[in-house]
Amino acid sequence: MAQIRKFKVQPRDAAAGVEPARTPSIALPDPFTLHNGGTLRGARIAYESWGQLNSARSNALLLFTGLSPSAHAASNEYDPSPGWWQKMIGPALAIDTTRYFVVCVNSLGSCFGSTGPASIDPHTGQRYRLNFPEIAVEDIARGGYETLRALGIEQAAVVAGASLGGMVVTAFAALFPQGARRLISISGSAAASPYAIALRSVQREAVLHDPDWQGGNYLPEQPPRNGMRLARKLGTITYRSAAEWRQRFGRQPIAANALRASPFAPRFAVEGYLEAQAEKFVRVFDPNCYLYLSRAMDCFNLADHGGSFAAALAGSGAERVLVVGVESDALFPIHEQAAIAEAFEQSGVRTRFVRMPSLEGHDAFLVDFPRFDTEIRAFLAD
Amino acid sequence: MAQIRKFKVQPRDAAAGVEPARTPSIALPDPFTLHNGGTLRGARIAYESWGQLNSARSNALLLFTGLSPSAHAASNEYDPSPGWWQKMIGPALAIDTTRYFVVCVNSLGSCFGSTGPASIDPHTGQRYRLNFPEIAVEDIARGGYETLRALGIEQAAVVAGASLGGMVVTAFAALFPQGARRLISISGSAAASPYAIALRSVQREAVLHDPDWQGGNYLPEQPPRNGMRLARKLGTITYRSAAEWRQRFGRQPIAANALRASPFAPRFAVEGYLEAQAEKFVRVFDPNCYLYLSRAMDCFNLADHGGSFAAALAGSGAERVLVVGVESDALFPIHEQAAIAEAFEQSGVRTRFVRMPSLEGHDAFLVDFPRFDTEIRAFLAD
Repeated sequence: MAQIRKFKVQPRDAAAGVEPARTPSIALPDPFTLHNGGTLRGARIAYESWGQLNSARSNALLLFTGLSPSAHAASNEYDPSPGWWQKMIGPALAIDTTRYFVVCVNSLGSCFGSTGPASIDPHTGQRYRLNFPEIAVEDIARGGYETLRALGIEQAAVVAGASLGGMVVTAFAALFPQGARRLISISGSAAASPYAIALRSVQREAVLHDPDWQGGNYLPEQPPRNGMRLARKLGTITYRSAAEWRQRFGRQPIAANALRASPFAPRFAVEGYLEAQAEKFVRVFDPNCYLYLSRAMDCFNLADHGGSFAAALAGSGAERVLVVGVESDALFPIHEQAAIAEAFEQSGVRTRFVRMPSLEGHDAFLVDFPRFDTEIRAFLAD
Repeated sequence: MAQIRKFKVQPRDAAAGVEPARTPSIALPDPFTLHNGGTLRGARIAYESWGQLNSARSNALLLFTGLSPSAHAASNEYDPSPGWWQKMIGPALAIDTTRYFVVCVNSLGSCFGSTGPASIDPHTGQRYRLNFPEIAVEDIARGGYETLRALGIEQAAVVAGASLGGMVVTAFAALFPQGARRLISISGSAAASPYAIALRSVQREAVLHDPDWQGGNYLPEQPPRNGMRLARKLGTITYRSAAEWRQRFGRQPIAANALRASPFAPRFAVEGYLEAQAEKFVRVFDPNCYLYLSRAMDCFNLADHGGSFAAALAGSGAERVLVVGVESDALFPIHEQAAIAEAFEQSGVRTRFVRMPSLEGHDAFLVDFPRFDTEIRAFLAD
């Protein structure tokens, strides 16, 4: 979740619902009824794709993202810049685009082309802002499902995702029987822990208390930057691991020219790193979209679908599942992925659960490519 | 660190340097030169005490606090309300006041009677605010040392502390040869990790960006409440453990009457808990003092005293040391206490290192009294 591509389209344009000319999107069923009530009119899902759909329409790999990335998972004809999973998606890579038609969707509620709180409400001609209905993880799953249907695909070969995307994969399995033959859920959770809820609650509060948030009615040229920076810095802390930072930064001081500008100015290299991560995020992400998606993660509970995780997954119809957890993940600790794997197993799906020893915490899927390449390649080859 | 007593003196009075009539204090040497340069005139250390000093003046137990508590560690004649270590200090308790003359000091730089950024600068008649010189962990150690000297005590029987206090104990050992016969360092660190620095950096930034902070010149009646609330909520998250909260809160919803007041209002019990903790803190703690003490924790490195932890401790002259770490502590992880214990051992001090399996994380010393009682009692009895 730490990597945000430098989106070529200014967030103001994306947020205003102006479709970037080169990013395709599909129309959701109209009206589109949301999981927790409320409907959207004229809603769209932005997506990008790689590879070719085969004549049987049976080789689609649907990819859900974490909280913050766009659908640009890898370079393509629309946008040659590297994507957030550039090293994983391509010819002969772990997700082999000579074999799969890969479709990555921008989450419903986000701000990179899909409809969200920063989009224009067709009823009013104004941005939705806080009038946007509550978004659930289930709605994001449905957004991906409808994208495949709009492309003429009834069943995905694979549905995959990491972090929020790993949650969405479990919701997809619960909602769409026979929706996918295989599932890959990485560093996800079937129900957020109180610890993760607490952290996201503090992140949201940082935005809500920024005077520039203006009750959600911030000016596009004056978003709640300080609140978003704080939220992202805290996010960055929770996405990595203390052990990685000991190796990477230790107590290294920051470059001397920045020293002591104010009594509490950054002094340590790790503070400079947080600063850089925050800047990247604030430039591209819409604050209200952030609040909605953050809360959606808190509220998701797979057990709402039938009373238990296993009951929720009982009808998925998936043939095989890969669940990956990272031992150093403090935000989505590995016992949460173990619970997902156990629930799939109980539901009768052939399940492989991988305990990844990566040092990079929740973000390992964005950093530790050798390990993820090996596991995903093996799972898809088998 | 989560427990703040409801101080009877309003923080405005305490912060203004008005000595509460019933809280004793000592005068520091005048001028008092600080570790990183700068001097204080007329500086004082507030303390509370329990038990009687024996005629040989050999039974003093000096106690340093965490970041936020006052010197009121237990009820006494000055203040009958329970203190932050009420269950540990008293007749026949682990820290037995029939045996020890217990002295707890309010840290230099804090706001409960000791001189700090909220005190009046005698040169100007105004509060120091950001004109206060940089405070170091070493200065806090010296504040305690000078308190004993002012009370006619040349050597402590025991010097003890937890969290920040556990850091201060190591500084005390480095600075004052023969200053104590025994040392107890609980959940401390000999040098803050980049992870802890990052977390505190975000906490400080929450205060610094609160418009009510006013560059440190906030009005006493309008402190940066939102920033302090955020900082304390994040602190509370880091002081406990994810596992404890799973047991304690799970995904329990908040009381229904608070539901949906705004789209992002608290919905989960854990959010209500954070709210309560933040409120308690904001009522009593001065924001500038918080910033100074927080930064002091980042900057402390015991190895500054001689090149290594062990070299720093080589001259302590202590006979025995107890070092306690808690396995679930994410903020001061147990390998940091292991490093302290190892350094004491290398310096030739007889050292006991306890790995506490408590679930309550960094705050275990404020919660898991049975385990701490057992260990401290055994160490002092032996």
